[in-house]
Amino acid sequence: MLTLTQPTIKFLKKPTSPQWVEQAIANLDIILLDHSHCERKAAGVALNLMFRYPSHTKLVRMLTAIAREELEHFELVNQWLESWGIPLGPLPAPPYPAGLTAQIRKLEPDRLLDSLLVSGLIEARSHERLGLLASNCPDPDLAKFYQSLMTSEARHYGIYWVLATTYFDREIVTARLEELASIESDLLTNLYSEPRIHS
Amino acid sequence: MLTLTQPTIKFLKKPTSPQWVEQAIANLDIILLDHSHCERKAAGVALNLMFRYPSHTKLVRMLTAIAREELEHFELVNQWLESWGIPLGPLPAPPYPAGLTAQIRKLEPDRLLDSLLVSGLIEARSHERLGLLASNCPDPDLAKFYQSLMTSEARHYGIYWVLATTYFDREIVTARLEELASIESDLLTNLYSEPRIHS
Repeated sequence: MLTLTQPTIKFLKKPTSPQWVEQAIANLDIILLDHSHCERKAAGVALNLMFRYPSHTKLVRMLTAIAREELEHFELVNQWLESWGIPLGPLPAPPYPAGLTAQIRKLEPDRLLDSLLVSGLIEARSHERLGLLASNCPDPDLAKFYQSLMTSEARHYGIYWVLATTYFDREIVTARLEELASIESDLLTNLYSEPRIHS
Repeated sequence: MLTLTQPTIKFLKKPTSPQWVEQAIANLDIILLDHSHCERKAAGVALNLMFRYPSHTKLVRMLTAIAREELEHFELVNQWLESWGIPLGPLPAPPYPAGLTAQIRKLEPDRLLDSLLVSGLIEARSHERLGLLASNCPDPDLAKFYQSLMTSEARHYGIYWVLATTYFDREIVTARLEELASIESDLLTNLYSEPRIHS
């Protein structure tokens, strides 16, 4: 029987559907490969933000830590791929990341706020989904691995929240997060045909 | 008296001039800030290569390690900046990185070869210059720090060389390295007016 967490992750408007869990568990090889891409991309996003805001000391410090951790996870996921005999390779992204990135407003300071919140939402959703994989994965070692990564993802969305409230008033952050969180959940309403962490 | 290493680093055609050492030692605060940018950029370059060649397993594995290490150095340099009371902030790059990047041919597989060799040359030059800072820096703790980073930079250009010879015939790699190494040294013939790691 599938285990579904409740939507206790306050960033998320709607919980993941049982259909996603079924799709993911039935395609763990592709999920692992996509997960590898997600970790590398998350490191890239953190690094890009550090490039764009080189004078924001707290942002630079906190995102350096995130980028380092994502690269560590990237290495760990790649070790799983190797042990399963899955070669590294490209994998087309689902519509989710582009759909969210399109919401980032172009002018500052909105761009910074939206960038932080979009990253926070992706981390929150990853946290939820890795938790679902941990609870439902038939391979106990892989389940343990997902469990171990979950904690970091939770810390990461906490960091993006802290950064947003460092540079912006809490009311502004909360209002914009409400809007973006609704869009985030809407983007996942219809299960994407290909198995992905964010399908 | 200035200590100059001999051009024992086989990648480099010409050794650094005494003028660079004088300029750097007289402006250690700017050199530290520029060094921070160099470490972050080096991590970014490694990550971009991983993005561009996701199926090149050995490249992905080795560059993940480099990117992680550059981010660790970035954190360490930033701690030095903090202890010296130098705020993080942007700093215009010298002509050197753009001059080298312009040499990267656009079509594959040349693009990969040139990207690896240009990164290797930058690491080799960084290794040489951090060594010069280690030998000439009046602050013994900072000198020790530069000394500790040197070893990694040496390992990094070794890795770029290994990757180049993994994906290309040694003769092709050697011939192209000859060309690029001459250009690299030429780019540094005239000392750039602003103090930088690669001025």
